[in-house]
Amino acid sequence: MKNLKIPNTDKQRVVILGGGFAGMNAALHLKDSAYQVVLIDKHNYHTFQPLLYQVATGGLEPTSIAYPLRKLLKKHANIFFRMAEALFVDVDNKIVETNIGDISYDKLVIALGSTTNFFGLPEDSTSKMKTLKSITESLDLRSFLLENFEDALLEEDEEKKKSLMTVSIVGGGPTGVELAGAIGEMKKHMLPNDYKELDINNMQVHLFEATDKLLGPMSESSQKRALSYLKSFGVHVHLKSAVKSYDGNTLTLANNDTIHTDTVIWTAGVKGIPVNGLPKESLYPNGRIKVNAYNQVEGLENIYAIGDISCMVSENLPRGHAMVAPVGIQQGQLLAKNLMREKQGITPKAFNYFDKGSMATVGRNRAVVDFPGNKIKMGGLVAWSAWMVVHLMSLVGFRNKMIVLTGWLYNYMNYDRVLRLIIHPSKKRVVEKINKEIEESILES
Amino acid sequence: MKNLKIPNTDKQRVVILGGGFAGMNAALHLKDSAYQVVLIDKHNYHTFQPLLYQVATGGLEPTSIAYPLRKLLKKHANIFFRMAEALFVDVDNKIVETNIGDISYDKLVIALGSTTNFFGLPEDSTSKMKTLKSITESLDLRSFLLENFEDALLEEDEEKKKSLMTVSIVGGGPTGVELAGAIGEMKKHMLPNDYKELDINNMQVHLFEATDKLLGPMSESSQKRALSYLKSFGVHVHLKSAVKSYDGNTLTLANNDTIHTDTVIWTAGVKGIPVNGLPKESLYPNGRIKVNAYNQVEGLENIYAIGDISCMVSENLPRGHAMVAPVGIQQGQLLAKNLMREKQGITPKAFNYFDKGSMATVGRNRAVVDFPGNKIKMGGLVAWSAWMVVHLMSLVGFRNKMIVLTGWLYNYMNYDRVLRLIIHPSKKRVVEKINKEIEESILES
Repeated sequence: MKNLKIPNTDKQRVVILGGGFAGMNAALHLKDSAYQVVLIDKHNYHTFQPLLYQVATGGLEPTSIAYPLRKLLKKHANIFFRMAEALFVDVDNKIVETNIGDISYDKLVIALGSTTNFFGLPEDSTSKMKTLKSITESLDLRSFLLENFEDALLEEDEEKKKSLMTVSIVGGGPTGVELAGAIGEMKKHMLPNDYKELDINNMQVHLFEATDKLLGPMSESSQKRALSYLKSFGVHVHLKSAVKSYDGNTLTLANNDTIHTDTVIWTAGVKGIPVNGLPKESLYPNGRIKVNAYNQVEGLENIYAIGDISCMVSENLPRGHAMVAPVGIQQGQLLAKNLMREKQGITPKAFNYFDKGSMATVGRNRAVVDFPGNKIKMGGLVAWSAWMVVHLMSLVGFRNKMIVLTGWLYNYMNYDRVLRLIIHPSKKRVVEKINKEIEESILES
Repeated sequence: MKNLKIPNTDKQRVVILGGGFAGMNAALHLKDSAYQVVLIDKHNYHTFQPLLYQVATGGLEPTSIAYPLRKLLKKHANIFFRMAEALFVDVDNKIVETNIGDISYDKLVIALGSTTNFFGLPEDSTSKMKTLKSITESLDLRSFLLENFEDALLEEDEEKKKSLMTVSIVGGGPTGVELAGAIGEMKKHMLPNDYKELDINNMQVHLFEATDKLLGPMSESSQKRALSYLKSFGVHVHLKSAVKSYDGNTLTLANNDTIHTDTVIWTAGVKGIPVNGLPKESLYPNGRIKVNAYNQVEGLENIYAIGDISCMVSENLPRGHAMVAPVGIQQGQLLAKNLMREKQGITPKAFNYFDKGSMATVGRNRAVVDFPGNKIKMGGLVAWSAWMVVHLMSLVGFRNKMIVLTGWLYNYMNYDRVLRLIIHPSKKRVVEKINKEIEESILES
């Protein structure tokens, strides 16, 4: 069997699966330590997930929210990187099997993050929906939205034309709200100019949320503010509206109401990315990994889980921490320090989340911010500026900060989102094209 | 049959095929004119081709050298855009057939540009080579180069490892020279840091040119300068070295010399993009369209060709003008004005190329510039700065100018090319993956 060709040294080896916020921080805080660190990710870059929706709506270039992992790690001789997909963890023999070979570990850190959770919706419904968990998916969504508008220009049937122009978002969490706001802005400022031949009133933006409020974990005043902001952008918000099925054109709600829409974007839930090889007892039903206060996986020696994929249940947190970047960052940093403490014979520290508050932006000049404890809340332009500063500072790399700032300033001054480029045809078109080619080759043969 | 749903007015309709430099300029100079203008391009953006090689080498984001055509045209009520691929010109009935429907024209302007010319090299050789004529191809090349370095890390065989790290460029024109310089820079500044585990001396950059000089049409002193600049970047330049075949690993020259290289980039020639329906007599053997001094296609009424795809032969120019952006821009502008002159009953003007000179950059601080007539030449840092100013000013859109300038400043200060992201796996990998999936589905069934 091939192996990853990492030199064997007398240092203990920490293998980290995943270069997201948690894994990246764990690796960086083990730099120049007494461990050899091997970071494994299927991409050669870190993704700043909170801004994916701006890539999908043409506000930011994909490259400005991605950062090459090798560049991040290049100064540290004890850290190695391999672009690989983890396939199986052999816990007995302490080996991770990947698509390019095997690697043994002394300590394993699982930081693979989360994936879309459709909560049991049938596959013939979900396969026709769009999701927004990676740069590839956000580019696919961007192309898909624009291709539908190009198609609408040619459509004879008025109902079908409306359906092509209608965008439905499922899930009223931060991603759903931010995306709805951005698409509402596209409707207001960009699409009417680009598609003068279409009646923009035919375009409807819907947001469906199963519970009775948006932004579940935020304060009531922020929830209400977000709702009124979305309405001011012309978004139709449907609360207490769970989705039952979707056939590519008709979206059916739990109460059997239907709506015709060619675009459905599912942002309603996340779950842990499946890790083959872990015993069932170490997992919650939603795929998240049971960890103790030191992020050690329940029942397994020398295996840790951090970030979205881990679930640290306590009396105050029966469902674990929120699956957000700051938790992953803090867990990654603490785990690295605890591993170093272990080497020095010092007692490790239990994880204690330092909550800096939460925020969501809802289009131009509009955002909501809750400070910890939900005692202080902000809205409007002040919150929007705060949102931008926080996100700008959190981006990895000076060049990315500059490019994003330049882009934002331009977009703000021009009421525009310039990156409306169909560089990568959406998956739908590619599949159609491949099917056509297969058909033709069958006809020819 | 479907049609493009362009409203019929009492204005004469000019259909322009292609939104490159020539087509875009023709369309824009017909704004608010007595014509209805329909611009057709298979992409929804204009590509600034001269900087594609910087996208391929991670120096610029693809979005910064592309500009949405709808944004460019949105202010002009008489100009329509359709994203479509022209399939056939029915010259008798004055109709263009596209993949999304038909459109009739009163005047047709063909501005489809050029494509890679392999000069009869067999397809089993060329299918394994990379080309650099579109944003998609440049992203494919970027991923391919980086994937080969990731593979080299795992390779046991020393010869194969060297081959994975070796980059061969065929063609010593501006694209070949600029690309070789940029890859030479990657070897010097970026790759050794990112791939510390590899011996960078195993990486070789080769440039093969069939004639005895680089940058054919430039002055002798610029040709010599470019050669010495490339050598200073560690590029092996092989003059009088035509390529005979390539099997994916071994590149064979006309004199039967061989070299092992996993990457071969073909920049050695261009030809006119084929247009179905035009009579053979209107075409030169290389696919370029015969036009008179007014860019009217030989033997056809009301059909014009401009830019790379057209070939205007005269006594002084037995092979027509160089296939470069300024010719296309000037022909597009002149044709638009001549069409308007026609409406006003004014005699049209013959094309007269205003040559502003030519330039090529060869990596950091190095470029060559020839002013018209080859009397004044520049090299080094001055030429390099001039090259940057000219290209920056030629980019479409203020935002693109700002993003490119920001990127260049960053790259210059940091000796770095940050955008080394494998966001889109190279075609090779995608094909491998699809083949594997087909195999698996056959096994399953």
